[in-house]
Formats: sequence, C-alpha cells, structure tokens
Amino acid sequence: MERCRLVFSGSGGQGVITAAIILAEAAVLYEGLIAVQSQAYGPEARGGATRSEVIISDTDIFFPKVNQPNVLICLTQEAYNKYSPSIRPGGLLITDTRSVQTGKKVDAVQRGLPMHQAVMEEIGKSIVLNICMLGALIGVTNLVKSESIIQVLEARIPPGFLEMNRKALDIGIRLATETNR
Amino acid sequence: MERCRLVFSGSGGQGVITAAIILAEAAVLYEGLIAVQSQAYGPEARGGATRSEVIISDTDIFFPKVNQPNVLICLTQEAYNKYSPSIRPGGLLITDTRSVQTGKKVDAVQRGLPMHQAVMEEIGKSIVLNICMLGALIGVTNLVKSESIIQVLEARIPPGFLEMNRKALDIGIRLATETNR
Repeated sequence: MERCRLVFSGSGGQGVITAAIILAEAAVLYEGLIAVQSQAYGPEARGGATRSEVIISDTDIFFPKVNQPNVLICLTQEAYNKYSPSIRPGGLLITDTRSVQTGKKVDAVQRGLPMHQAVMEEIGKSIVLNICMLGALIGVTNLVKSESIIQVLEARIPPGFLEMNRKALDIGIRLATETNR
Repeated sequence: MERCRLVFSGSGGQGVITAAIILAEAAVLYEGLIAVQSQAYGPEARGGATRSEVIISDTDIFFPKVNQPNVLICLTQEAYNKYSPSIRPGGLLITDTRSVQTGKKVDAVQRGLPMHQAVMEEIGKSIVLNICMLGALIGVTNLVKSESIIQVLEARIPPGFLEMNRKALDIGIRLATETNR
C-alpha cells in the first residue's frame, strides 16, 4: 500500500483525536498495518483549531509527524483556513459542507460532504460527527474496512451507544458513496 | 524548563493514551507550555504492552518521537520488561509495585508505588488507575499543577464521574509524597 498521511481537523470537542485513535487501532489490530497517531499542541491549541494526525503504512514509520497530509479532513472553516495550504499536491480534501466554504485554490481532489447536517437530521447528536467523518473517509478511500472500525468501537464504547456510532459510520460511508456516483 | 520526554506504558484498556492526552492538554491549555502527544502502533500492539508518549517543553518541539524517555511509568510487568531498557540514564522510573517486579539494573531513580492497590482499596474501580498514575507523576516531578489536570478533567468527564477521578489524582499525589518523605 501507499503510505497514507492523514490530518483530521476541527474545533476542540469535536473528537478529532478520538477519531484518529480509532482509525489507527482499526488499521493495526484488524488489518495488520502499522500506524502512528499524534497531536501537537502549541500556542495555537488555545485558539479554536484542533488537529490530529495518523500515518498508516505496511512498513515501518520512522518519522511520525505529518507535515504535508495526503488526506486532510476539515470540519470547521478555521481548520480549513489554517490547514488546507499544507495539503500534499494531488491529495484528498474532505470538508463538511455546512461548516466550510472552500475558496482558495487547492491542488487536491475536493469532496464537500454534508456530514454535520446528516448526523443532526438522522441521529440528532453532534457527538458522533467524528465517527461519521471516519465513515466518509473510508467511503472515499477504502483505507480500512468498516468492520475493522466497528470492532474498535465495540471494544471502546458502552453497548448502549454502539448503535448510534454504527449509524454515524454508515451515514458517512453513504454520503461518500453517493458523491462518488 | 528542561524538556520532559515521558512514556506511559501498561496493557491495553488501562488508559495510558487518555492519560497522555490529559497531561498534554493540561500543560498546554493551563500552563502555557508546548506538548506533542503520540502513540506508535506496530505489530507489538497486537501483543499486550501499550505505550503512549508525551513531550512537554517551553520551546518548539521538532522531533515528536520519544526514543529515550527521561520519565517512564510502567503499570505492568510486560511493559516494564519491554521499555525499561530504553530509559535515559539518570531518568525517573515509576512502577506499580503490585504489578511490576523490578529486577534488572536500570540507571534511573526508581519509585515503586502501590497505585493499583490504593485505587482498588479506596475507590474500588481500576478504571481510574490512569488518573492515579498522573497524580503520582506530578507528585514526584511537579511537572504540572494538579489544578491544571483537574481543569482538563472537568472539561472532559461527565460531572457524575469527576469526584472519582479527582480522588484518584489525590491518591497518586499522596503516594508519591509519602514515598518522598
């Protein structure tokens, strides 16, 4: 596989760190891959934009930092403004259409998906937006199988909340697949 | 301040990643420091030992990986066996006395603390062992203030569970301080 360098970005509390950990665990525990997951907090962490990073590979990863992601997901305008210039040329940019107005030219495949809107309409709780985001990611890229993510969710989430998370994952996959058509 | 490179290690489900994120957030959001938090998952992630890393500094951090921690905490024997050889000479090694038998010579200040035992006796839930571990860390090192960790906990944890976490933090600080005497 090609090494995949991802950045998830949004605002504090949207669960982009949790999503990165879930993705890394899914890749490693259920798909036999290698992953590094990290977040850097600088003075900017006290502002609004949060980011988390995941590198997934089938060979050893020696430099664990993502300077130029080839996949960038932005859940907020601020995150988009801040991180979209760093995307690797020819990469993939996924944005939440409700929250992000893409404007500047970015040399990337762009996918605007109404993740937040769909989660609110169909589930009513924005807390699972991060899981919908993972669904959108794997719907577009096939990076890991949805079953691998569900296995991580089953191990991490109390049974009563599992169904909601599974639904959010499905919404993300559906949005990505609809857009692909 | 001196740059602090920490590794928390234990088994899956003990919350060493969560503890690392809480520490990094406390340092950055409430103490004006810079932090990088990461975990690398390789084939070994499918075994028993889990580790998470935090670097805390007051200046920029360019290399985010911890090869030689100057603070290493081990909650299980397997984690100790695996990671104690990597400690930076003259560093600090904190182990859980119930779970870890230290044997080999390690060039470090060693502190065995009965964290698991105290948490079980006084709270009865091992789920907060990771917070007790953070208490022990700051009790020994004064790396960040306990109030900074409590502020992060207040923002992350449902109100009903806050008291239990606060108590676990206090137990860790107390164990560290008793041992200091």
